[in-house]
Amino acid sequence: MRTFWHEGQLAHRPASEFFNGALHPAADKVERAEHILAAIGRTEAPHLPDEATLQAILEDVHSADYLALLSTAHAEWRAAGREGDAMPYAFPVRRRPLRLERIDARLGQHSYDTCTPVAEGTWPALLAGTATVLGALEAVLGGEHAFALTRPPGHHAGTDTMGGYSYLNWAAIAAIRSGRRTAVLDIDYHHGNGTQDMLAGREGLSFASIHADPVSDYPYFWGHADENGDNIRNWPLPRGTLLEAYDAALAEGCAWIGEQSPELLVVSFGADTWEGDPISHFALRTEDYARLARRIAGLGLPTLVVMEGGYAVEALGHNVASFLSGF
Amino acid sequence: MRTFWHEGQLAHRPASEFFNGALHPAADKVERAEHILAAIGRTEAPHLPDEATLQAILEDVHSADYLALLSTAHAEWRAAGREGDAMPYAFPVRRRPLRLERIDARLGQHSYDTCTPVAEGTWPALLAGTATVLGALEAVLGGEHAFALTRPPGHHAGTDTMGGYSYLNWAAIAAIRSGRRTAVLDIDYHHGNGTQDMLAGREGLSFASIHADPVSDYPYFWGHADENGDNIRNWPLPRGTLLEAYDAALAEGCAWIGEQSPELLVVSFGADTWEGDPISHFALRTEDYARLARRIAGLGLPTLVVMEGGYAVEALGHNVASFLSGF
Repeated sequence: MRTFWHEGQLAHRPASEFFNGALHPAADKVERAEHILAAIGRTEAPHLPDEATLQAILEDVHSADYLALLSTAHAEWRAAGREGDAMPYAFPVRRRPLRLERIDARLGQHSYDTCTPVAEGTWPALLAGTATVLGALEAVLGGEHAFALTRPPGHHAGTDTMGGYSYLNWAAIAAIRSGRRTAVLDIDYHHGNGTQDMLAGREGLSFASIHADPVSDYPYFWGHADENGDNIRNWPLPRGTLLEAYDAALAEGCAWIGEQSPELLVVSFGADTWEGDPISHFALRTEDYARLARRIAGLGLPTLVVMEGGYAVEALGHNVASFLSGF
Repeated sequence: MRTFWHEGQLAHRPASEFFNGALHPAADKVERAEHILAAIGRTEAPHLPDEATLQAILEDVHSADYLALLSTAHAEWRAAGREGDAMPYAFPVRRRPLRLERIDARLGQHSYDTCTPVAEGTWPALLAGTATVLGALEAVLGGEHAFALTRPPGHHAGTDTMGGYSYLNWAAIAAIRSGRRTAVLDIDYHHGNGTQDMLAGREGLSFASIHADPVSDYPYFWGHADENGDNIRNWPLPRGTLLEAYDAALAEGCAWIGEQSPELLVVSFGADTWEGDPISHFALRTEDYARLARRIAGLGLPTLVVMEGGYAVEALGHNVASFLSGF
């Protein structure tokens, strides 16, 4: 399988995140990518268009205001005399369009947690990630399978919201830009709330997600069993889920995707379903990923895999390699 | 003026709050109340009904689920193995009714910032504060003026949301329980978004607020100039506002309140409009508060003053005493 990676994505190096009443070292470390690279071997560097070109492409998917904030938030934060990364602390639980000035207000306006800081290198890393997705998409449009090794993750990002370590939604970018009937299958441990929100009701696009029940797991407010629309299906599973139950849900998910008659498949792949993941609670083994991938490959669709979560750094490369081996 | 204070409110001692990317000592210190007490002299201890009685009263105003969370969140947080105070970190920017389990999910479900921790003594302090408001309300229903020295503040708390150091909405409790046509005048530096949300559209109740423009100041998402309804009026003012401009807005606010034909007035009083307040940006002087109070007293209504913000601890007592002297 062709694998796309732009090393510019290493520029995103958030220091910390806030949860459980304290600051903790950021879980989305650059070592995640490095271990994947070591495990999967050769990658292709995608063409990196200039910023204006990428910006124009992104504005078809994300709002212009939101992109402007992503590109300037860290500089504004520093200009306000702050140290470290830009982090929100207040949130519009009932949203309406507002022109706000203060960086804290605008961060909150476009966020829904305190775990997704905008660091100095975040914006260039996001541009590199966009290029990575575009490169992989081109391969898939040509009928091949491709893996876009994206970092940071993307599936929690909405049209104009960051959250869950995600800033730009790789899966939505690929699906919307493909110009084809496209299904997104999200098999990260956490619900892909951003992707769901961005694809809901969109003609020709569909979204299926298998994930930890949000009653007990992040992102809490989205991905519940009743969140099903014409083009949306969710399979929340309990903590402790093993291969058999997971694979049964995946079989249902693949059957439903088949009914949508897509021409392309995008897989939001997280390896945080692995038994040793430090922040997640399913119990898949490394060898299970190959089996899951074979089931997905059985759909017979050109498939673009984008990288989402997975925080057991040492095992991550092996888990990704196992998954890719199934195609 | 009769002044009600229950010392049980001192039990609320949050350690810290999260903003600007770091934890900071909580600004709502017990010393705030102590300095006010020293400045104003004698207070009356209200009757403290038992918890079940207070709970039943509160359920007419706040949701039962929300009250249950307030009463148990700190114990649940500790039971989850956490240290310190219970603090949310994720927020439902698009809300719908959901049954969530995890303490983090439920804290976020009922919060919109990371500055309003539930500490060990928060719940008993809130019960004592409720008693304080009820005692003062009884005096006002009897035709007197009264000051309820409430702590923590209340005006940012909504029917089922904490935020801005506020957990229970003292002004809304008084207005809703009064059984009379009641106007709430909010003259804290920050918009009283919780009170507005709770009173909007309620027959016989009205809300007027003079505050820092939320484009630049907390709570950012509420209190904008266009937020006016049949029974709601807002006067956002720029940073640096001095007495003259402030008093002009107050004159308009009092005229509008007069048109609502209330039988009672509740004033949400914050002394964070003072020139030396460490987290706010108006420039009223201590002696100005007496003048503002005289204008409010000119409405000729039995008036219940509840204490909201004010974080210049040393000056707080003098500012409160100056304000009360105008009645």
